[in-house]
Amino acid sequence: MVPHIETPPVGTHLRWDDIAAEPIADGIARQMVVGQRLMVCRFRFQPHVETAVHSHPHEQITFVEKGRVRFVIGDQTRIASAGDVLCFPPGVVHGATILDEEAVLVDVFTPLREEFLKK
Amino acid sequence: MVPHIETPPVGTHLRWDDIAAEPIADGIARQMVVGQRLMVCRFRFQPHVETAVHSHPHEQITFVEKGRVRFVIGDQTRIASAGDVLCFPPGVVHGATILDEEAVLVDVFTPLREEFLKK
Repeated sequence: MVPHIETPPVGTHLRWDDIAAEPIADGIARQMVVGQRLMVCRFRFQPHVETAVHSHPHEQITFVEKGRVRFVIGDQTRIASAGDVLCFPPGVVHGATILDEEAVLVDVFTPLREEFLKK
Repeated sequence: MVPHIETPPVGTHLRWDDIAAEPIADGIARQMVVGQRLMVCRFRFQPHVETAVHSHPHEQITFVEKGRVRFVIGDQTRIASAGDVLCFPPGVVHGATILDEEAVLVDVFTPLREEFLKK
């Protein structure tokens, strides 16, 4: 299976349960829904996974669907859990550390993270 | 309470449970998270509510969080339920009819739906 990376035709109707989850690093799997200038990535993280602090010119809004996550955002640290929403303006350095249970995060980006679309 | 409509500062960390739900029509309440070019609107619909078929130049991706919804998208009809994701390219006419239980939809837009920000 390959992730869904085509620009969606009119009426595109997907289910998370049917979208391939691509392992992208130890303990991290990613599902994608890709529009024209909107991209949604749903990540499943094993406990204690840490993502490198990074930044990108894309704006990001993240929903915590499951689990607890310690985010570094600029010079701040935030502990987030299910039902939380975090805003990452373009260019702000950020990183995430998954706490003691599996976590699911839904990241929305604009524009597309083109580097995620390369095979 | 007023909806959250300011451009979020770095480290903005919200909880859906704390974001004001604004009644915008009979049986429809809307919460908003507003970024620079990303906007998230979470709608709670009473059963059987129908939204007018409409279109907008903004791209939209919708997550069904709860309930069952019949969408019209262009010339197609789709029945969607929790866990579904639908893509609405810019300019495509669409509308929703809530079926027999309360529904919660999360709509992501780019750019901002400026008309939603007017008092």
